[in-house]
Amino acid sequence: MKVAILGASGIVGMQMLKCIEERNIDCELVLLASNKSKGKEVYFKNKKLIIEEVSKESFNGIDYVLGAVSSTLSKEYLPYIKESKAIFIDNSNAFRMNEDVPLVVPEINKDDIKLQKGIIANPNCSTIIACMAIYAINKISEIEKMIVSTYQAVSGAGIFGIKELEEEINDISKKQEIQKKDDATFPYQIASNLIPSIGNPLDNLYTSEEMKMQNEGRKIMHLPNLKVTCTCVRVPVIRSHSLSISLETKEKLSIDKIREAISKFDGVHLVDDLQNNKYPMPLDTTDKDFVEVGRIREDLVFENGISLWACGDQVRKGAATNAIQILEECIKQKIK
Amino acid sequence: MKVAILGASGIVGMQMLKCIEERNIDCELVLLASNKSKGKEVYFKNKKLIIEEVSKESFNGIDYVLGAVSSTLSKEYLPYIKESKAIFIDNSNAFRMNEDVPLVVPEINKDDIKLQKGIIANPNCSTIIACMAIYAINKISEIEKMIVSTYQAVSGAGIFGIKELEEEINDISKKQEIQKKDDATFPYQIASNLIPSIGNPLDNLYTSEEMKMQNEGRKIMHLPNLKVTCTCVRVPVIRSHSLSISLETKEKLSIDKIREAISKFDGVHLVDDLQNNKYPMPLDTTDKDFVEVGRIREDLVFENGISLWACGDQVRKGAATNAIQILEECIKQKIK
Repeated sequence: MKVAILGASGIVGMQMLKCIEERNIDCELVLLASNKSKGKEVYFKNKKLIIEEVSKESFNGIDYVLGAVSSTLSKEYLPYIKESKAIFIDNSNAFRMNEDVPLVVPEINKDDIKLQKGIIANPNCSTIIACMAIYAINKISEIEKMIVSTYQAVSGAGIFGIKELEEEINDISKKQEIQKKDDATFPYQIASNLIPSIGNPLDNLYTSEEMKMQNEGRKIMHLPNLKVTCTCVRVPVIRSHSLSISLETKEKLSIDKIREAISKFDGVHLVDDLQNNKYPMPLDTTDKDFVEVGRIREDLVFENGISLWACGDQVRKGAATNAIQILEECIKQKIK
Repeated sequence: MKVAILGASGIVGMQMLKCIEERNIDCELVLLASNKSKGKEVYFKNKKLIIEEVSKESFNGIDYVLGAVSSTLSKEYLPYIKESKAIFIDNSNAFRMNEDVPLVVPEINKDDIKLQKGIIANPNCSTIIACMAIYAINKISEIEKMIVSTYQAVSGAGIFGIKELEEEINDISKKQEIQKKDDATFPYQIASNLIPSIGNPLDNLYTSEEMKMQNEGRKIMHLPNLKVTCTCVRVPVIRSHSLSISLETKEKLSIDKIREAISKFDGVHLVDDLQNNKYPMPLDTTDKDFVEVGRIREDLVFENGISLWACGDQVRKGAATNAIQILEECIKQKIK
């Protein structure tokens, strides 16, 4: 079995490589990236691999392509991936909402993979973490409404997002003024600041990132009427996203029942003991595959409402781990 | 006129002094603090003042006492303040919900001051900033429900909160491991982290800080039936609090009408142009007296809903400035 990582030198691509190694998936790997990363050496299962420059011919003989590039590049290479008959598991935003493209979080809707026609999409990072956090509740009683405020790590903007925060932290500790470069990742200083805009502005005054929570959430959880208000905020945290969620279910649920359901849900850890200072935190979920859920309590606004707080690593479960789980499901379901 | 600052060496007390100077309030100042700060020199209008140790006799001859100490100390000194017949403008949580104590944000309910019986309370910092952000909307149509997620700066935990974040940032930039001291202000590392718990845990699984938004919000805005769900989160930001708010009003309001109302509201700046990267940010409101409001858009969950984002300096409008505005109102209303 031959697997190609398209965008192997990026933060998500590198994490995909690590996840394949950790999960001991038996495959031959081809690492593809732009001309800039060509020739870079990478270790995989103690073997040296060299990153190749991607071309139209790169996908010949490949069974699965893991996409970790921009929407534009995913669209650009799609025809060649199609030609090679490889299955394209794509982390970009390019095809997520296409009707014939399953959008999958394996713990929630792995059977949707069967409907694939060559592309399976990996959802938005915050949406994956939110769905993981709440789907155990939805299994008991349908979720009808959600109000979500995100606290999103700089890793969501890639390696350069992390570097920018680290450099700004260094400047602050040296009492140097922070000067934004022309090619800065964030429009303003992010260290000791918050930027309440992620993605592109839309006509309805939401950002593209904010609307993913409703649009992708509906598709993943099979809840076409789900209403979601989302506010996406960049915070000076390295790589775990956090979410404050208030939701309303069809029926009234007890906190105990919800806690039990969440604690049994695969890939989710219940961390919920406020009295003893136990709650999810980005530092505790950094570089971990699981999502933590806590601060579960009755919402005081919704009739059948629940409020909670969740954290998950944006690079792992929010991106690479979920994509590799989709790959595992494809192998298991013999989808080739 | 003689004004005493009780807790003059703390972050709020020092800011009160600055605000009195900036606003050119004509008074004689007495600076009171614990034994630890006794003898410290402070400059006020180019004159040296010396901090005195507070005692039972400190309040004799004082007209107004500005409280910037803990609830416990506010309660401890209340009898002596009462005895001196001074008006006590208290920033602590001790008396805020007492029926005979007005809880005042001057732009909203300055007439409540008339009902005072010796104590006027300054509200919780996040609650002041939230009420400032939304009250212009409430004036057009009553606010019935609010879901709030906070992004609270470390200054909310006082000078030691700021020092702790600064030290952790230094450790991170030197690649040193962060070690929590036994007397740490925060239970966990706050640099590059988020702590979703502020205040004390309550039986309803909310924190005391979270319930202030509903309880104090009702009292300040005269909305006894207001329902509020609040999630309070400490973020690695120095001294401006931010709030993501979804709210429902009695009638449907247009975005234009709301923007107009907010832009005309005293003490609030409308910063709302997503397309051009203009939105409130903690850095832009740091050390400023105004509250910034932006990201105003139709809420997708509530029927007559509005979502918005607000930032305000926690030490200024969230505490000291508001207290000094109350003092100014007392002087204007001849309350002595």
